[in-house]
Amino acid sequence: MAPMTTGTGRSLGVALLGCGVVGSAVVRLLVKQADELAARVGTPLQLRGIAVRRPGRARDLPVSADLFTTDAAALVRRDDVDLVVEVIGGIEPARGLILAALEHGAAVVTANKALLAEDGATLFEAAEKAERDLWFEASVAGAIPILRPLRESLAGDRVRRVLGIVNGTTNFVLDKMSTTGAGFAEALEQAQALGYAEADPTADIEGFDAAAKAAILASLAFHTRVTAADVHREGIAEVSAADVVSAEQMGCVVKLLAICERHELSDGPSVSARVHPAMIPADHPLASVREAYNAVFVESEAAGRLMFYGPGAGGAPTASAVLGDLVTAARNQLSDVRGPGESAHAQLAVLPMGDTVTRYHIAVDVDDRPGVLAAVATEFARHEVSIQTVRQEGRGSDAQLVVVTHPARDAALAATVSGLAHMDMVREVTSVMRVEADSESDSA
Amino acid sequence: MAPMTTGTGRSLGVALLGCGVVGSAVVRLLVKQADELAARVGTPLQLRGIAVRRPGRARDLPVSADLFTTDAAALVRRDDVDLVVEVIGGIEPARGLILAALEHGAAVVTANKALLAEDGATLFEAAEKAERDLWFEASVAGAIPILRPLRESLAGDRVRRVLGIVNGTTNFVLDKMSTTGAGFAEALEQAQALGYAEADPTADIEGFDAAAKAAILASLAFHTRVTAADVHREGIAEVSAADVVSAEQMGCVVKLLAICERHELSDGPSVSARVHPAMIPADHPLASVREAYNAVFVESEAAGRLMFYGPGAGGAPTASAVLGDLVTAARNQLSDVRGPGESAHAQLAVLPMGDTVTRYHIAVDVDDRPGVLAAVATEFARHEVSIQTVRQEGRGSDAQLVVVTHPARDAALAATVSGLAHMDMVREVTSVMRVEADSESDSA
Repeated sequence: MAPMTTGTGRSLGVALLGCGVVGSAVVRLLVKQADELAARVGTPLQLRGIAVRRPGRARDLPVSADLFTTDAAALVRRDDVDLVVEVIGGIEPARGLILAALEHGAAVVTANKALLAEDGATLFEAAEKAERDLWFEASVAGAIPILRPLRESLAGDRVRRVLGIVNGTTNFVLDKMSTTGAGFAEALEQAQALGYAEADPTADIEGFDAAAKAAILASLAFHTRVTAADVHREGIAEVSAADVVSAEQMGCVVKLLAICERHELSDGPSVSARVHPAMIPADHPLASVREAYNAVFVESEAAGRLMFYGPGAGGAPTASAVLGDLVTAARNQLSDVRGPGESAHAQLAVLPMGDTVTRYHIAVDVDDRPGVLAAVATEFARHEVSIQTVRQEGRGSDAQLVVVTHPARDAALAATVSGLAHMDMVREVTSVMRVEADSESDSA
Repeated sequence: MAPMTTGTGRSLGVALLGCGVVGSAVVRLLVKQADELAARVGTPLQLRGIAVRRPGRARDLPVSADLFTTDAAALVRRDDVDLVVEVIGGIEPARGLILAALEHGAAVVTANKALLAEDGATLFEAAEKAERDLWFEASVAGAIPILRPLRESLAGDRVRRVLGIVNGTTNFVLDKMSTTGAGFAEALEQAQALGYAEADPTADIEGFDAAAKAAILASLAFHTRVTAADVHREGIAEVSAADVVSAEQMGCVVKLLAICERHELSDGPSVSARVHPAMIPADHPLASVREAYNAVFVESEAAGRLMFYGPGAGGAPTASAVLGDLVTAARNQLSDVRGPGESAHAQLAVLPMGDTVTRYHIAVDVDDRPGVLAAVATEFARHEVSIQTVRQEGRGSDAQLVVVTHPARDAALAATVSGLAHMDMVREVTSVMRVEADSESDSA
């Protein structure tokens, strides 16, 4: 690509890779908002081609059929392509195409969370080498502007913690369980019937999608590299209607959270990223995030508590995020400059899950006889886990004990649960779930 | 200022204008985060001077006393100053100093909402001419990243409406009235005692502060120029404990809102910006914004409903916003490029307040005799205002009528209220307040 200068009147060429729900919405917005986009960029954006697998497929889009091609590799290397939008998803061919586009001098906008979380470093290095922009706002929390605030608005602050509801499907399922009393399977079926969950919901339900987003959030928030493999991941398939009721009894709701934390330890700072269901107080701002909405809560040293809320998925919302990035990338291409690249200067170690500090809510069915509470309490003490509250409820020959701990190392909490399960007088550990609130109040 | 190139190892010089609550917090963060800022910018930021009125005043700041000067004009023109942070506030000398700084080749970061809302055009033109950055995230809603999302993240979308709680003092007062039943004067006194309101609270209470922010929000959201003079402004001094109770009875809370709207009229689009107390449904995301917190709700065509929430004022939060801008401006200075300038291409007309479409909640004391309701209803009909609900409550010889209208032109609603006040059987119009919800549900 020849370098451009402002004011040549030359339009900027856009190549679109993928034309599913998000890609189609991008096309529609590019056409509908063409004049406004041209005014904001400083020159028109021209769609040069759309790479798809089946070019003949009927698509109700306001563009010429000639634009569709199966040859994505050739498209990203065209000399009249200045900007490449990748919304194919997955690792390959997306990675190869993005690398080819950057190498050829195009700026890239992608919504590909899986690729960024697995191998962001390769992309960032390629963008650095090519001196081109790589933007990916749409990869986390759909339309919600969260990556740019982390990358830029909070660049003069130190983020301590990011707590997010970043998967709409699981939030919809948990919200339905909470409002209707449905079990997990029933709520999932409902989500599928309404189009909020896919036929194979594994990526959402098992937390893979949220874990990829957690890796991206942690990397940006803490200026370090965190990959999907660094993220501790638990899904919501094990969450029962009883857990939801238990949460309610202690004034909480159950949410699948992505939690990214910076830890100031004696041997220097480190970070952690984890995705798991957790109970949060009903008056926490994240508790009122309903249905398939997303929200990200950020705690930073100077700014304090911030929250970002909005639609976490869907064609038009995600396309809005893509086009916001596209306008910035286009302005930069026009001036032959680039926006901020990867900021991984902090190079922080990732703390193993066992070393993170959490709180547990544990419900156990025990024999209703003298000495049980003392024995259970001793098991907690043996692992140096301090109990915050305990509630005992007799019901015939057995009783239920519900314990909420103070913050402790996750490994110690897990060992306590395992110890409890092996006690004679414990019939069953019926529910184990972490409890999250604000870092100020619940960190050791 | 000589052009700089990356990698010279030269530090960037920062001049600070003003050293009150925000300025002091900026100094502390610059010192405490020096290493991280250097890593993020690519070179160290060096504080070259701090312009104050009383340099001898005792300040507990981790910098040399030599940095303080009364000669702000000389400071902004120093050749080793690349970045100027203006936190003096007010029109002059702030405007003159910012213009001088830009002319001399420095980038400017300011928190000065009053100046931006009164004469932003002069600043933007100077920045354009000098090819330098002008950033002002801290001018609206403190630490909340809202201007950058509007300027950049939503640049590929069309914003329809911005609804914000952007003044912490008035939100604190209204929140106290709502939670304790206190009257306005009592709640204000409490706010003053706790430091949430100034000794002279006029700028906050009368809505001047919120109106300046509304002008800035509307300009960025709609890519047009809106000044403080274009903003319809009503304060909260007239809000009574009875209004708050009345709101509660209809499932609402009273908030001072900044409302910026884009109107698609038959003769083309226009915009409006207004600040006034309004009733909003208790389940609206803005209703749960408590105490001195701020929140901005954005409705845009593709992204849908977004909300940004956080501390709207205070030294450290505002300094976080200033430093985020400073990092961006510093990176740009280092590469001798500039970020996006003013985007006012839309050049939309500002709709007069009388032509905006709103809903009213009106309470009137009337004689309790036959024909009153018919007469009152006729007065509404005469102004072509449609009634949504009406509640009549007898109490001895008089009765109270509470009417909530459908959306109608504000001028028609005001004329209706004036007509009611002149009716024989109407003893007093006891409460008039606008009712706001989502644009989808309440716009004509």
